[in-house]
Amino acid sequence: MVPDRLLLEEPLRQQIDQLCATAHACYARGWVPATSGNFSVRWGSRIYITPTGLDKGTLTPDDLLEIDLDGAVLGGNGKPSAETSLHTVIYRDRAHARAILHVHTIWNTLLSGKFAESGKVTLRGYELLKGLSGVATHEHTERVPIIENTQDYASLAEKLKVVLQAHGETHGVLLSRHGLYTWGESVAEARRHLEALEFLFEVEGRQLFGHS
Amino acid sequence: MVPDRLLLEEPLRQQIDQLCATAHACYARGWVPATSGNFSVRWGSRIYITPTGLDKGTLTPDDLLEIDLDGAVLGGNGKPSAETSLHTVIYRDRAHARAILHVHTIWNTLLSGKFAESGKVTLRGYELLKGLSGVATHEHTERVPIIENTQDYASLAEKLKVVLQAHGETHGVLLSRHGLYTWGESVAEARRHLEALEFLFEVEGRQLFGHS
Amino acid sequence: MVPDRLLLEEPLRQQIDQLCATAHACYARGWVPATSGNFSVRWGSRIYITPTGLDKGTLTPDDLLEIDLDGAVLGGNGKPSAETSLHTVIYRDRAHARAILHVHTIWNTLLSGKFAESGKVTLRGYELLKGLSGVATHEHTERVPIIENTQDYASLAEKLKVVLQAHGETHGVLLSRHGLYTWGESVAEARRHLEALEFLFEVEGRQLFGHS
Amino acid sequence: MVPDRLLLEEPLRQQIDQLCATAHACYARGWVPATSGNFSVRWGSRIYITPTGLDKGTLTPDDLLEIDLDGAVLGGNGKPSAETSLHTVIYRDRAHARAILHVHTIWNTLLSGKFAESGKVTLRGYELLKGLSGVATHEHTERVPIIENTQDYASLAEKLKVVLQAHGETHGVLLSRHGLYTWGESVAEARRHLEALEFLFEVEGRQLFGHS
Repeated sequence: MVPDRLLLEEPLRQQIDQLCATAHACYARGWVPATSGNFSVRWGSRIYITPTGLDKGTLTPDDLLEIDLDGAVLGGNGKPSAETSLHTVIYRDRAHARAILHVHTIWNTLLSGKFAESGKVTLRGYELLKGLSGVATHEHTERVPIIENTQDYASLAEKLKVVLQAHGETHGVLLSRHGLYTWGESVAEARRHLEALEFLFEVEGRQLFGHS
Repeated sequence: MVPDRLLLEEPLRQQIDQLCATAHACYARGWVPATSGNFSVRWGSRIYITPTGLDKGTLTPDDLLEIDLDGAVLGGNGKPSAETSLHTVIYRDRAHARAILHVHTIWNTLLSGKFAESGKVTLRGYELLKGLSGVATHEHTERVPIIENTQDYASLAEKLKVVLQAHGETHGVLLSRHGLYTWGESVAEARRHLEALEFLFEVEGRQLFGHS
Repeated sequence: MVPDRLLLEEPLRQQIDQLCATAHACYARGWVPATSGNFSVRWGSRIYITPTGLDKGTLTPDDLLEIDLDGAVLGGNGKPSAETSLHTVIYRDRAHARAILHVHTIWNTLLSGKFAESGKVTLRGYELLKGLSGVATHEHTERVPIIENTQDYASLAEKLKVVLQAHGETHGVLLSRHGLYTWGESVAEARRHLEALEFLFEVEGRQLFGHS
Repeated sequence: MVPDRLLLEEPLRQQIDQLCATAHACYARGWVPATSGNFSVRWGSRIYITPTGLDKGTLTPDDLLEIDLDGAVLGGNGKPSAETSLHTVIYRDRAHARAILHVHTIWNTLLSGKFAESGKVTLRGYELLKGLSGVATHEHTERVPIIENTQDYASLAEKLKVVLQAHGETHGVLLSRHGLYTWGESVAEARRHLEALEFLFEVEGRQLFGHS
């Protein structure tokens, strides 16, 4: 990672340490299997992001790439992930976002597949919705939009931008049979959103896939 | 936490240490996702309780608030949870209770939702019911009352009081699509009740949600 | 534990250490919730067994009771479990058994309930059956007998004796909606039987409880 | 293990260390219960492989056997597994393979049983397929062949050879109600294949076994 980590501001170093700890926790839960998933923090106009092909269970600060908001690599040794552009789109559209977490879980894969045509997963009536920033009641309805998965990342980035603008209140976006993107003002907030959304996906999923 | 932890009686310090260990174990099992849940111990007329918004996987004794049985804060730095009043209601109605655990799990969310209208989850015929204090046979019927979830905590505290008095023998209370409250004469007993009830919720849930 | 642990033979000390490690592993998997389950090793005519009411996640050698084959306590400080007599029945009927493991799991609770009337769980066609001592092919049929649960332990011990004699080849016995007893010539073999049977219960259970 | 481990080349030592770490991780996830499963790395014409009957949760480099591509034992103290010949068949047919992982999981047991007659599990449309080497799109169709399980290992090795040649593009082979074999150019790649395939088996399985 460039510049020398010891030269980074202390609050940024703490965010980066929390990002690594979050990556390890996600790996332990089976949420980033087979080197999937990616994670980043933003600091001003700089982004620190996981490179492609890395086992997230072993992520260290030195593995991160430093990029700018256009995705240009400023430092670090790995190769950027094809999904780097999705991070920059989110940071541009969600000005308050300082951290982004992207995971592949059993339940987000199942739900994003089942509801791919309807274009969203709807979560309503659960106390745990209050784990989402700004949500004060279980009566809240969270609509998590689903974008059809594609390997055309330029097109995907474009669609993500449109979806983010059309759903200004959502705390996450699903890619069908692919995974979840969520974010927050800090790694801690992004992780809270991740845990809340994945919990609710499992609750919904067990009702849907357990019934005929 | 105030007063200085080193001035606390040794048995209370042990209860507090066990409360923190229990919180960490609950986090590891996914039972307090997204900073949800709350935990407390009572010592005479003082209560030591988790503040709002804390990741329970990182709870330390210093994070706890000291409050009295009316919920007034006596010491500590965090902000009390909106659910603090539910703890004080339980400690007042269950004179023997020294510890309260509140968790959000997949299975207590599913069951408290499915049986919300009937107002209770009924557990019967399982050996593990003997994990509940005073229960000596699997032929015991445990009726865990369900209170409809609301953000009106004053009203919720009132309903909880009524439910506790109407169900003098229950070892726990569910809030619909929200979570479980359970308690015990010690942290160890409360944890035993928690493990027994959550095990039985999962056993029931797998029968209910696996069938059409 | 009496006599002083340092005076025990080294092979017995190793068995006891493995028993404790197995208990911790079972706790971590949720197989002995709420202080349930019990574990023992036999050494000649002496049995070292967990006392009642102990959290198996914290078991140490010093917690074990020393008893004889009639269940009389020879040493140790805890109170014997009501199920101690089931251990002595097994050790008497299975002369080669040196270790017994008893656990309460989600899947053994579900299957022992579902098949309580038929009196057995039948496992057939799985490679993992070869994890059971003496089984050399997946074409083996393992019939795990189910005894109706009761709190009359004298009667239960009597029934267990009859069942063990009638099913000379079984590697375990289920108590309905209660749990599994399995054993082996060593702690390692008993643990292998436990892991094989519980794996197969889950495989069967997911087929049975997932279908309508 | 012979020759003395300290005399092995450093890259081989690293592969062996990663193999042991992978075995421990598989044990922790319940993927090699009851001493099942086996693991190997190939280095030139030598293979380092787990012996029969070993608890994979405790595997150390010293436990490995050194064999040649005909399965003849060159060094080490344990007894070769009956499935050793399946490893040599894979290394001969897949010239690039440097590591082989064989596991017994709940979901590979369920799927290999359900689709035994059709002879394959088909995976299509999932982003995680890109965890498989050479797969660049979720639109890829992975057909994992299923061989009927048997205890005649000579016949099984023969069938495996035929299946590998007929399915030059598959990343794994299933044995019905037995388990998965997967491989890679390194332990890391084999582990990536394992995590990707098992994730997808679970996703498929939860759809199939949750519906009537």
